[in-house]
Amino acid sequence: MKRLNIVLIGMGRIGQMHLKNISTLPEMFNVVGIADPFSDKLADLADEYNVPKFSKDYKELLDKEKVDCVLIASATNTHAEIIREAAGRHLDIICEKPIDTDINRIKDLLKYVDECGVKLQIGFNRRFDHNFAKIRSYVQNNVLGTPQIVKISSRDPEPPTMDYVKVSGGLFFDMMIHDLDLIRYLSDSEVEEVTAKGAVLVDPNIGKLGDIDTAIVTLKFRNGALGVIDNSRQAVYGYDQRAEVFGPKGMAKADNDRNSTVELNLKDNTQLDKMPWFFIDRYKQAYISELAAFYQSVANDKPLVVSGIDGLRAVQLAEACRKSLDSGKTVKVEY
Amino acid sequence: MKRLNIVLIGMGRIGQMHLKNISTLPEMFNVVGIADPFSDKLADLADEYNVPKFSKDYKELLDKEKVDCVLIASATNTHAEIIREAAGRHLDIICEKPIDTDINRIKDLLKYVDECGVKLQIGFNRRFDHNFAKIRSYVQNNVLGTPQIVKISSRDPEPPTMDYVKVSGGLFFDMMIHDLDLIRYLSDSEVEEVTAKGAVLVDPNIGKLGDIDTAIVTLKFRNGALGVIDNSRQAVYGYDQRAEVFGPKGMAKADNDRNSTVELNLKDNTQLDKMPWFFIDRYKQAYISELAAFYQSVANDKPLVVSGIDGLRAVQLAEACRKSLDSGKTVKVEY
Amino acid sequence: MKRLNIVLIGMGRIGQMHLKNISTLPEMFNVVGIADPFSDKLADLADEYNVPKFSKDYKELLDKEKVDCVLIASATNTHAEIIREAAGRHLDIICEKPIDTDINRIKDLLKYVDECGVKLQIGFNRRFDHNFAKIRSYVQNNVLGTPQIVKISSRDPEPPTMDYVKVSGGLFFDMMIHDLDLIRYLSDSEVEEVTAKGAVLVDPNIGKLGDIDTAIVTLKFRNGALGVIDNSRQAVYGYDQRAEVFGPKGMAKADNDRNSTVELNLKDNTQLDKMPWFFIDRYKQAYISELAAFYQSVANDKPLVVSGIDGLRAVQLAEACRKSLDSGKTVKVEY
Amino acid sequence: MKRLNIVLIGMGRIGQMHLKNISTLPEMFNVVGIADPFSDKLADLADEYNVPKFSKDYKELLDKEKVDCVLIASATNTHAEIIREAAGRHLDIICEKPIDTDINRIKDLLKYVDECGVKLQIGFNRRFDHNFAKIRSYVQNNVLGTPQIVKISSRDPEPPTMDYVKVSGGLFFDMMIHDLDLIRYLSDSEVEEVTAKGAVLVDPNIGKLGDIDTAIVTLKFRNGALGVIDNSRQAVYGYDQRAEVFGPKGMAKADNDRNSTVELNLKDNTQLDKMPWFFIDRYKQAYISELAAFYQSVANDKPLVVSGIDGLRAVQLAEACRKSLDSGKTVKVEY
Repeated sequence: MKRLNIVLIGMGRIGQMHLKNISTLPEMFNVVGIADPFSDKLADLADEYNVPKFSKDYKELLDKEKVDCVLIASATNTHAEIIREAAGRHLDIICEKPIDTDINRIKDLLKYVDECGVKLQIGFNRRFDHNFAKIRSYVQNNVLGTPQIVKISSRDPEPPTMDYVKVSGGLFFDMMIHDLDLIRYLSDSEVEEVTAKGAVLVDPNIGKLGDIDTAIVTLKFRNGALGVIDNSRQAVYGYDQRAEVFGPKGMAKADNDRNSTVELNLKDNTQLDKMPWFFIDRYKQAYISELAAFYQSVANDKPLVVSGIDGLRAVQLAEACRKSLDSGKTVKVEY
Repeated sequence: MKRLNIVLIGMGRIGQMHLKNISTLPEMFNVVGIADPFSDKLADLADEYNVPKFSKDYKELLDKEKVDCVLIASATNTHAEIIREAAGRHLDIICEKPIDTDINRIKDLLKYVDECGVKLQIGFNRRFDHNFAKIRSYVQNNVLGTPQIVKISSRDPEPPTMDYVKVSGGLFFDMMIHDLDLIRYLSDSEVEEVTAKGAVLVDPNIGKLGDIDTAIVTLKFRNGALGVIDNSRQAVYGYDQRAEVFGPKGMAKADNDRNSTVELNLKDNTQLDKMPWFFIDRYKQAYISELAAFYQSVANDKPLVVSGIDGLRAVQLAEACRKSLDSGKTVKVEY
Repeated sequence: MKRLNIVLIGMGRIGQMHLKNISTLPEMFNVVGIADPFSDKLADLADEYNVPKFSKDYKELLDKEKVDCVLIASATNTHAEIIREAAGRHLDIICEKPIDTDINRIKDLLKYVDECGVKLQIGFNRRFDHNFAKIRSYVQNNVLGTPQIVKISSRDPEPPTMDYVKVSGGLFFDMMIHDLDLIRYLSDSEVEEVTAKGAVLVDPNIGKLGDIDTAIVTLKFRNGALGVIDNSRQAVYGYDQRAEVFGPKGMAKADNDRNSTVELNLKDNTQLDKMPWFFIDRYKQAYISELAAFYQSVANDKPLVVSGIDGLRAVQLAEACRKSLDSGKTVKVEY
Repeated sequence: MKRLNIVLIGMGRIGQMHLKNISTLPEMFNVVGIADPFSDKLADLADEYNVPKFSKDYKELLDKEKVDCVLIASATNTHAEIIREAAGRHLDIICEKPIDTDINRIKDLLKYVDECGVKLQIGFNRRFDHNFAKIRSYVQNNVLGTPQIVKISSRDPEPPTMDYVKVSGGLFFDMMIHDLDLIRYLSDSEVEEVTAKGAVLVDPNIGKLGDIDTAIVTLKFRNGALGVIDNSRQAVYGYDQRAEVFGPKGMAKADNDRNSTVELNLKDNTQLDKMPWFFIDRYKQAYISELAAFYQSVANDKPLVVSGIDGLRAVQLAEACRKSLDSGKTVKVEY
């Protein structure tokens, strides 16, 4: 198996997590450089992970014959430019979601990526989660029949900061976008229409910023299935991540993970263990699996599990949800 | 504790089930008569259950000083008349759902019942189910805080006959009506608007009769909560009955019952036991508990758990769902 | 289906429970009499359950042509005599466990019962429990293969009174005897040897009375299987009743019942619902099922699920456990 | 945080697993050398994991000023010598179990290790398992009270080869030794006596080699608790690893892990996902956690979670089990 030389761009919290995860796959990747225009930890990180090069300017690291691919974990508004630069150098790309917030810009970019003939995988890590991947395998193997009802519950343990809410694009774009991608994956179909209902029940400040914190979206799929996603910005009991597919031959549902299987029986109650705290814990293995899948695509020319088109679709669906919420009406999704 | 003398009207499958259930509560009820205009089993049933009187004409049994209350399990289109007759004789009433299919007729009837000063309990048995009653108790005791998201999954093991579909009034009136009542009970609030999405995915013949067999309805409640109900006429794995309430202080969810707790671990898979087959098995204890609650209301003047108003509301909600499905729009519920 | 005329002897707590349970099976049984030498509630009970006769002297009720069978729920030291009287009158018998505490007296009695040609079912109700019966069905249908390891955990929610401990015969005879019967049933084999380990960990007063309150017994079965039973007089979290059979083709295990399937997720913990409180709740359905099985044996001549021999075996095993505990050695069971 | 320079000795399957696991903890360990007298993969492994030195003779790698500690994963009969060499050079040691099979040799060795003033951690990885560690935390925090009953079920998915059985020392020494250590850890007490029952039920060839394949061992602890361990060489449904502690304040039990939380509901049955296949999968995280704990002990002078004494005790208990099985009697454990 050939090892891929990879450069990581963006060394914030998520970038560092990817660096650590890549270090657990030494048979797949050599990290040959890390870049971040703002970080003052580059030298320390390079030392700890034996990375030979680092720079504030990622382009310096790409100007080499020795690089095979890049991982982009920088700010969303830099994704498009970096993708363009990397694709132009014929490097394969794995990029955090979303590609961009502007649908037309995404379309242009995907066209360019296509012309360059490089692979572009988008960071919808939940597709690689052990629970959701298991449901997906049942769908693909026709264990359930063509899906009729698809459900996702996705609730964060705590709301983001107001600073984040101001720039995030809103619940549909920064939170539900994961579920909109996942429900396409689990239903194995495209969404035809969405109906979004929202409310401000967690924090009135979120409402003052023009966003919602609680939402239920219903969807109709091309294959006839109905779907529903519910979101909340705050589940005090933990990061609630569940999904279900119902079809004519059966139903598969994924419950939450817990930190252990231990059942504690006391006089007053019986307790189960805690859920993993938020996405870095909950999707720990999924983040590693998405890297391994990217490796398979690049090194062995396997099809991408999450393509650039998938990245585009999720933004289009989020856009449709916002229109539905604003208008109070069901909205046909435009592709 | 005083025993109540009760007359049962309607000796079809459900009426006979009630007769058997009442026999398990000898400290609460004396069955003093059974009536059914069509049954040829009245004499046998009276013999088996030690019932002193039976008649094809229920009115014969009500003309007595010894009767305290009636249970009505006859055809839906006879409910209104029998309620009127019983109320006029100052008998307390427990009546199978729905009261009637015409909202104005129900309103008139409830007014009359009120004037007569009798109790009228409607047979929404799921309120008495051990799982749903447990969730309700958490809501009432404010364990979860004011509900924010309320969810019900309710799927039948097999579709009804086409003869039944023709006269049932449609999925919202004969099937989801139970869930529409239950979601009011679990949310502890009134519904302000509904949005109904439906599909014909189980049997095209159901579509030919103008009905749907798969539905997702979203609801907005007066207390701000969002809700969602999903229904299917056919879950091949069994009678799927689940509910969930999510609030600022926590979340309670009820999974399906199973016939035993046994986990069977085999070479190829690990199996859980079957779910109870359909409503008579699944809600066996709930049917008995609704009788016991009716007894408490009548004998000890406790408030009704399911009143005539609850019966009216469920029909109003089903009506709103039908309008939403027909129009493709969100519908405000009129009360 | 022919109804059986039954007389109930012993109207203490368990006798009254049986009376109530029989009233839920009107198609199987007519209660024609109840007897108890000490109870002052006989008239009230007869009135409530429409029982035509009652007496302090059970023999008065047996001197009739109209009686088919008797249920014996009187004090243990009266069982043998009443069985003898009933058998002599050719009445079929269902008797609470144990038959007697003296092995030779039991053997004589069983011989007499056999000569009289009547059925004698012993009240090992756990064989009829939905969980344990499910495991048994897997064993009988060879789903697991010949059992290799059989395990039972059985712990009471609270210790009995010291007055009871004084006369009960000790933990092996009043508590583990149920598990000794059940493990024979689940293993589908006979016990060859037992090794009993005990301790006084719950209440030193139990130790002062010469008994233990905590025990682990290992068993070797004729079919080669190994078994283990653990008992405690006090599980503060509830009545802990579990079993497991492991064989070459798989493993089946029964977990505890809970009052509902509701999972309550709170900030500090996730809670499951309570277990049923003690045996009358936990084995509610099993007590009814044992009556139905007795009916099938008597009315339709089906084989007994728990015979007099089973009653004898359980006492022989308890005896062997006591010998093992006293001697500190493994003991061969004598039959 | 200071990184520790570590040398790994033994590059068989388990040694390579440790090498991979250590690569996921770059902030804790630098692998400065790998050694194995027989492996022909040393160069490749050194290349893949960026290890600067490798040798067939581990002593060459220890003669350096730059080594802090060693990990020993070589054949059991080499452990004692390597420990002695490493301790003599004042290197801290983490060594796979068992230390040795001869109790007196272990005692001498521990004395020498003590004199050298180095840390010696034994590879009882199950202490670091998320499930068992959770139970242990409840015991240590007195959530359950002083343990009264402690139970472990431990069954392998398939028997080892006959070649392995010939040299393994028998079921108590190669398999139950893990459980004997774990039950000491969970009970938080020392074992006073054991009673072992065994059988050959899986493969008669195991019996021909003088070993058993099925066992139940009961234990009495110094704190009064009773314990039981059951083992089988073959559970066709997977690697069955469960434990339970029961005390006066409650009970904690760990069920098996499964590869996902997905519940698949089909017409004929409801299925849970598979268990992880055998110990490398099941204890994947535990193997990493034992390394992290070793780091904490060495770098931050925290107490060892598994000391050399723990390694000795497990062998002493296995010895007592063998004596009990051979004699058919309960055996006091000699320390």
